[in-house]
Amino acid sequence: MSDIGSAKVRLYVEQPLGQGQSVPLTRDQAHYLFSVMRMGVGDVVLAFDGASGEWLARVAESGKRGGTLVCESQTRPLQMPPDLWLLFAPIKKARTDFIVEKAAELGAARICPVQTAFTNAERIRQDRLQAHAVEAAEQCGGTYVPEVCNLQKLDTVLADWPEGRRLMFCDEALVGAGRSLGDAPRGPWAILIGPEGGFSGAERDRLRALPFAHPVSLGPRVLRADTAAVAALTVWQQALGDWT
Amino acid sequence: MSDIGSAKVRLYVEQPLGQGQSVPLTRDQAHYLFSVMRMGVGDVVLAFDGASGEWLARVAESGKRGGTLVCESQTRPLQMPPDLWLLFAPIKKARTDFIVEKAAELGAARICPVQTAFTNAERIRQDRLQAHAVEAAEQCGGTYVPEVCNLQKLDTVLADWPEGRRLMFCDEALVGAGRSLGDAPRGPWAILIGPEGGFSGAERDRLRALPFAHPVSLGPRVLRADTAAVAALTVWQQALGDWT
Repeated sequence: MSDIGSAKVRLYVEQPLGQGQSVPLTRDQAHYLFSVMRMGVGDVVLAFDGASGEWLARVAESGKRGGTLVCESQTRPLQMPPDLWLLFAPIKKARTDFIVEKAAELGAARICPVQTAFTNAERIRQDRLQAHAVEAAEQCGGTYVPEVCNLQKLDTVLADWPEGRRLMFCDEALVGAGRSLGDAPRGPWAILIGPEGGFSGAERDRLRALPFAHPVSLGPRVLRADTAAVAALTVWQQALGDWT
Repeated sequence: MSDIGSAKVRLYVEQPLGQGQSVPLTRDQAHYLFSVMRMGVGDVVLAFDGASGEWLARVAESGKRGGTLVCESQTRPLQMPPDLWLLFAPIKKARTDFIVEKAAELGAARICPVQTAFTNAERIRQDRLQAHAVEAAEQCGGTYVPEVCNLQKLDTVLADWPEGRRLMFCDEALVGAGRSLGDAPRGPWAILIGPEGGFSGAERDRLRALPFAHPVSLGPRVLRADTAAVAALTVWQQALGDWT
């Protein structure tokens, strides 16, 4: 029970990790490790805090309501995603959860639900979506967890747009007419995915007029919003991200 | 109620469509149109049969157990996807459904569940997966429905491999080492996505030795099988398909 190969659980913890560091477990984590996974003192997990890479950590204390891990050695360095935000209009619950999971897996640095003219959602459960991003990072071997922002109006986001960040704007009305990302500059970017009903005429006009916006086509078929999110993240990572 | 803009329903039908053609409705279709959508005689739908494009069709008869449409005019020509097959190892039900839906949306011509060494699924519900492909085509404006094959062993599929078809093989062990599709030839292709547990050593050796196989990397993160399927379809469509 002593090496990395025997660690069957990856755990995101909020406490900073480091050599010899003690890490208190939350009640939920203790329940998962000791009741669900039937682990005990001496067993090892892989832990990451989103900032210090991945660590082999051994259970030093176990209890029904808590426990302690002790970090033994770093198993992987921190791997930051590129400086890419995903902006998307929330859709039905399962598909919104899916978008957050996939954005975390595919390496978005920040996930921002935005309210557009045709967005049905009035609010989101930010805590629930953040938990999905954590779980996706735990599952896919990530050492970083993207921040899930609170729901903001698209108008507000565009009005406060940070200087120097480019926007890849995927619009189904662009079928066959979008630009390629092939010669676009690297640096901070965001991807914007519209809601199932598309953007309103006013939104589309505004987006097209933005000097930092790059309209991109995702092929000749109309894609659902969740498909478009995964396809757009793939297109961007291939052209400008860390896939090459 | 006479033009294409008022058609709120897209319907896949098995009967061949054409000018003036009468189309009998199944019991399920009649229930959907007349009970769920509360349509009646004179209302219009968009219908496609997977071979004749999309047609504006008007309800001529409506009943509880059936009804008839009459084709009035073709609204879109048939758009065939590229000659691309998606081979994937079935995973949990919801994620398998998702892969089929996304493959139909992203333009795969055939969807083939394959049993690998580490595939848990002993069988699939081919009829249910085919229905998902139909629903995805109805939703996304497609005029073609990819065929969902029955579950076959990967070994059998590879032993019967059709001459001239290339295989894009996505293996998480390839991180950073895959070839690019940039200069690969167009023509018939298949994408192969492994199960959550990856390929076995023997499978990997066999796949790598195949003269028609192109190993491709999907970036530095480990992707879930369903994410990998969408990302791989996107990469292929961009490089060799109909997105350009």
